[in-house]
Amino acid sequence: VSDQKLEAAVVGASGYAGQELCKLLLGHPSIELKAVHSARPGAAAGDAPVAGAPMQSVLQADSFKGLDAVFLCTPHGVATPHVRAALDAGAHVVDLSADLRLKNQVAWEAAYGQPHPATDLLDAAVYGLVEHNRESIKGSRLVANPGCYPTSVLLPLLPLFEAQQISSTGPIIADAKSGVSGAGKAPTDTTLYHNVVENFRAYGVGTHRHAPEIAEHADCDRIVFVPHLLPCFRGILTTLYLPPAAGATEDSARAALAQAYAGEPLVKVLESGIPALRDVQNSPRCHMGVASANGSLVVVSVIDNLLKGAASQALQNMNLMLGLDEVEGLL
Amino acid sequence: VSDQKLEAAVVGASGYAGQELCKLLLGHPSIELKAVHSARPGAAAGDAPVAGAPMQSVLQADSFKGLDAVFLCTPHGVATPHVRAALDAGAHVVDLSADLRLKNQVAWEAAYGQPHPATDLLDAAVYGLVEHNRESIKGSRLVANPGCYPTSVLLPLLPLFEAQQISSTGPIIADAKSGVSGAGKAPTDTTLYHNVVENFRAYGVGTHRHAPEIAEHADCDRIVFVPHLLPCFRGILTTLYLPPAAGATEDSARAALAQAYAGEPLVKVLESGIPALRDVQNSPRCHMGVASANGSLVVVSVIDNLLKGAASQALQNMNLMLGLDEVEGLL
Amino acid sequence: VSDQKLEAAVVGASGYAGQELCKLLLGHPSIELKAVHSARPGAAAGDAPVAGAPMQSVLQADSFKGLDAVFLCTPHGVATPHVRAALDAGAHVVDLSADLRLKNQVAWEAAYGQPHPATDLLDAAVYGLVEHNRESIKGSRLVANPGCYPTSVLLPLLPLFEAQQISSTGPIIADAKSGVSGAGKAPTDTTLYHNVVENFRAYGVGTHRHAPEIAEHADCDRIVFVPHLLPCFRGILTTLYLPPAAGATEDSARAALAQAYAGEPLVKVLESGIPALRDVQNSPRCHMGVASANGSLVVVSVIDNLLKGAASQALQNMNLMLGLDEVEGLL
Amino acid sequence: VSDQKLEAAVVGASGYAGQELCKLLLGHPSIELKAVHSARPGAAAGDAPVAGAPMQSVLQADSFKGLDAVFLCTPHGVATPHVRAALDAGAHVVDLSADLRLKNQVAWEAAYGQPHPATDLLDAAVYGLVEHNRESIKGSRLVANPGCYPTSVLLPLLPLFEAQQISSTGPIIADAKSGVSGAGKAPTDTTLYHNVVENFRAYGVGTHRHAPEIAEHADCDRIVFVPHLLPCFRGILTTLYLPPAAGATEDSARAALAQAYAGEPLVKVLESGIPALRDVQNSPRCHMGVASANGSLVVVSVIDNLLKGAASQALQNMNLMLGLDEVEGLL
Repeated sequence: VSDQKLEAAVVGASGYAGQELCKLLLGHPSIELKAVHSARPGAAAGDAPVAGAPMQSVLQADSFKGLDAVFLCTPHGVATPHVRAALDAGAHVVDLSADLRLKNQVAWEAAYGQPHPATDLLDAAVYGLVEHNRESIKGSRLVANPGCYPTSVLLPLLPLFEAQQISSTGPIIADAKSGVSGAGKAPTDTTLYHNVVENFRAYGVGTHRHAPEIAEHADCDRIVFVPHLLPCFRGILTTLYLPPAAGATEDSARAALAQAYAGEPLVKVLESGIPALRDVQNSPRCHMGVASANGSLVVVSVIDNLLKGAASQALQNMNLMLGLDEVEGLL
Repeated sequence: VSDQKLEAAVVGASGYAGQELCKLLLGHPSIELKAVHSARPGAAAGDAPVAGAPMQSVLQADSFKGLDAVFLCTPHGVATPHVRAALDAGAHVVDLSADLRLKNQVAWEAAYGQPHPATDLLDAAVYGLVEHNRESIKGSRLVANPGCYPTSVLLPLLPLFEAQQISSTGPIIADAKSGVSGAGKAPTDTTLYHNVVENFRAYGVGTHRHAPEIAEHADCDRIVFVPHLLPCFRGILTTLYLPPAAGATEDSARAALAQAYAGEPLVKVLESGIPALRDVQNSPRCHMGVASANGSLVVVSVIDNLLKGAASQALQNMNLMLGLDEVEGLL
Repeated sequence: VSDQKLEAAVVGASGYAGQELCKLLLGHPSIELKAVHSARPGAAAGDAPVAGAPMQSVLQADSFKGLDAVFLCTPHGVATPHVRAALDAGAHVVDLSADLRLKNQVAWEAAYGQPHPATDLLDAAVYGLVEHNRESIKGSRLVANPGCYPTSVLLPLLPLFEAQQISSTGPIIADAKSGVSGAGKAPTDTTLYHNVVENFRAYGVGTHRHAPEIAEHADCDRIVFVPHLLPCFRGILTTLYLPPAAGATEDSARAALAQAYAGEPLVKVLESGIPALRDVQNSPRCHMGVASANGSLVVVSVIDNLLKGAASQALQNMNLMLGLDEVEGLL
Repeated sequence: VSDQKLEAAVVGASGYAGQELCKLLLGHPSIELKAVHSARPGAAAGDAPVAGAPMQSVLQADSFKGLDAVFLCTPHGVATPHVRAALDAGAHVVDLSADLRLKNQVAWEAAYGQPHPATDLLDAAVYGLVEHNRESIKGSRLVANPGCYPTSVLLPLLPLFEAQQISSTGPIIADAKSGVSGAGKAPTDTTLYHNVVENFRAYGVGTHRHAPEIAEHADCDRIVFVPHLLPCFRGILTTLYLPPAAGATEDSARAALAQAYAGEPLVKVLESGIPALRDVQNSPRCHMGVASANGSLVVVSVIDNLLKGAASQALQNMNLMLGLDEVEGLL
């Protein structure tokens, strides 16, 4: 019954991630999307699939009053005032921006080139990589939703560290390839049709902001992360090249991942072969496969950057905080 | 004057590489395309831009008589009888198939799963990576044209070995991404529109036939080569992750490449930044750039797989053998 | 409760339409997908999203026993034996092939170049253009599902005839553009990535098999139908050029359409402007808009060729025959 | 010899048409590209393939001094001051903007929503549809280069009028489809990758500025022109639906076109079948084919919108004015 549903708002609803999140919430059995906000309401009004939840351009003092759940899909640097307001209003909050993803203030400021917006919130914010922080998320009221690339790297990487499948020396290569939706919806030279189609390039080599996020949450300073821009719209495929620990093999690495993710509803470890981007587009899942080449472990993961890399992981986090079934509204 | 032009034939002219080669030859100032052959003459007749050089479906005993230059664009395993016939007829030969690319017969047979078709030709065949074998090519009558991926890997890699920029231990990662034209023109599940567009995947991990070719010509057994299939038509971008030798830096690596390729007409080392696939599509050039990330050298190279990775490199080789300007008909 | 669900089978489940239909049925609240059949079970096994309903390659004598609903997604010419078997077994049947779409046997045989496979079934078969044959469909056990192009043409056209908005003389132009999924899943020169991307062409001018289907169901011999192949995967946009009846205007035509489709759950007539293909991809809806240019009415309709043009319209028909809510499992 | 080459400048060189024109001029045997100008020099410096001809951002008083040829590739409304300056400096001028394409001032002002910028130049400006105005162009110093859509419509249409193949009553439908390069290089919602790929739409129905240009130069008020935006980069395919004159047939119409364009170097009338967009991309040619459907003549034309629809037609015009071979630098 609608009266009994939990109530949610989405701030920054006109971007790609915000739009995906609104679509998920509109189909959620236990959550009602009560309000959507966007600094671009004109554009958003045409885009947002939010019948019954008119787009608002200005956040009011009481915008979050009575809400159970607030999602921030704003750019980094501007989310935390809304985080505070939502927490003060008693809501659970998932911040999809980068503002609270790093505990390391110095690393954050170096990566984002500005003073940290809210160091006082860092203690409360749980890093929402669900499959590895589930219990902390359940007891939290504030989740920092992981970046898209970090999600694609950390999900295959963390269990291999834990199972001691990776050598303690030598570089760990993460060659990541993303669809152009990762660059956002603003028309720029990067998102121009002609510059995407039949093109491909690396970018941010050695400087991408997701590198310190990956390093912190993998607790590893040997990761070499290079992102690339694919001539397609959505999805991330990451190819990891890992120096095996003594005795580790393709089979033992696959077994370690399979064991780590046994029973996980949204992570699939292939019994053989490696996944393609196609396998997870428009899906909240991460698929991964293991191979080897000339002595290196080669692990390939795929996610939809707008879903498991953003909107669906955000909802997965919120479901947990609200005491709902983790995958409600996702499958 | 047409009577004085050198005369050439292309065997296997209906594939993508064969078609590109025919187009180049039709515009060549000093070579006349006298004959084109294809096992698929029906299809080819519609495709081939070969006015005045009607497609023939059957090679005759005297098909190569009087020719100066013969190009084989057939699949592997079937090129060498034509190589022999062309050599016997006195022609210079570039074999674009894989038949003569490896000196190591055992490695070839393991990779291609069949007995080697012509071990007696291996001594005569020069590996046609022009910028590194130019003098041998000039004095030769038979060139094995390099594979597309090996070209993209070896051009940036060889000078860095020579200049001792790469550590003598540790894996050398070559993460390569190719447009779908590398899979050829036959309609298959791989080349189906729906399976290419908005998709991306790795393939041949640990098993691709170009891995032993790269290893032999780099004289290095530490290379980890993983190819991927891009949702676009043409071009290869390879991202190399290299452990630096003691003292080697991004700058010293770039300088080594710049020095190695100074004066080369078809290789460009960027002074800063890294190249995009777009930069070399429909071009006979290789561009490369150097960066670093977390202690690894990151070198990115781009080529057009159908040109520098096939047709234009073949013509570059033939020009050299015939005593012509190396880039005649290419720029 | 699963025991009480109606039970369905899909024959020809490995094609694009069959796959879409299986996905819809797997999410249907009142229908259980009990069996899927394909002549290409190997390919299909990998494709079909049919957990719990293993793909079968051979139809048995009792394959349809006890089923409530059977969908035929086979090529034309081979569906009717299965239609008979399913009807004999007591099932309701939707035939997505072209076999029963025309009442006019002569026109069918001319268009399909073969003897009609089952003229005795023509009386029983109802043409399943839901919004115009709803009552007949409800009382039927056999529906011929409309072709994709005819659906895109007839939905905007029929109400304009009925409301006398179209002149009784002069050609009626239907310039239709379809994504390549309409050409099916088989790898051919038509569906090869390279021949689709960055390309566009008309085909079947004056000869396409959907022209007689459109003519019969519009009861009009003045329609000029020309299909084109878009460089994308799914969707049909049809631009109709109509000579207006005396007094008819853009506004009166729009009003006629709006009135005809008021209350229709799956047809939307835009109050202003014209729709884009994007608006209905992955949707069971048809959108249409009206404009005028230099004295002609210009009506643009868009559908997803695999859904409203095939799978979702088939399910819409089946829902009606089974006494279910017409849009159950579709929205 | 370089000293003897004619000298040219391109104003507005950073757009797609300007870039194509620069590429053509750089390969022209008899014309040297002396100067390129752009209001976006930063962007242009990276884009323009103009070695030896540095991009300038500001036009000087004497910018055109001594030049033989000046091309204006600016937006409409701002070209004519440069036209005057170039004419005053003694140059021949091709204006690729829309400013001088219509003799009818009232129609121009209605279409472009502003006062006409230079009615005094209208008498001197020749409409540069080469195949139909060749003699006037030869004797002129100022050519208004036709729009891309008008070129694609008028080339097939004009000879059919002249040969009396078209009925004197009834609408003439021109359903045109263009790649997105026609929308220009500025990043906008229209040119955003996500809004182009897998999408398709009509636009400017009844209001497109090319409609009055087509009407004036066809001298016909019965043309219904509707443009559409294809999910690809370059090329225009136009499908014409023509009411045949008494006695006119598909064969007679094809014969009329073949006769009109016999000997034309850049127009090809197919002996059978209809052309695809692919046939003319990156080519200065127009191909056309004739079919019929249900009593209407169906004529399909294809051009590259950036070449025959802009840059190459501009150079074809300039070659004529300068007394050069019409196709020099084009084939």
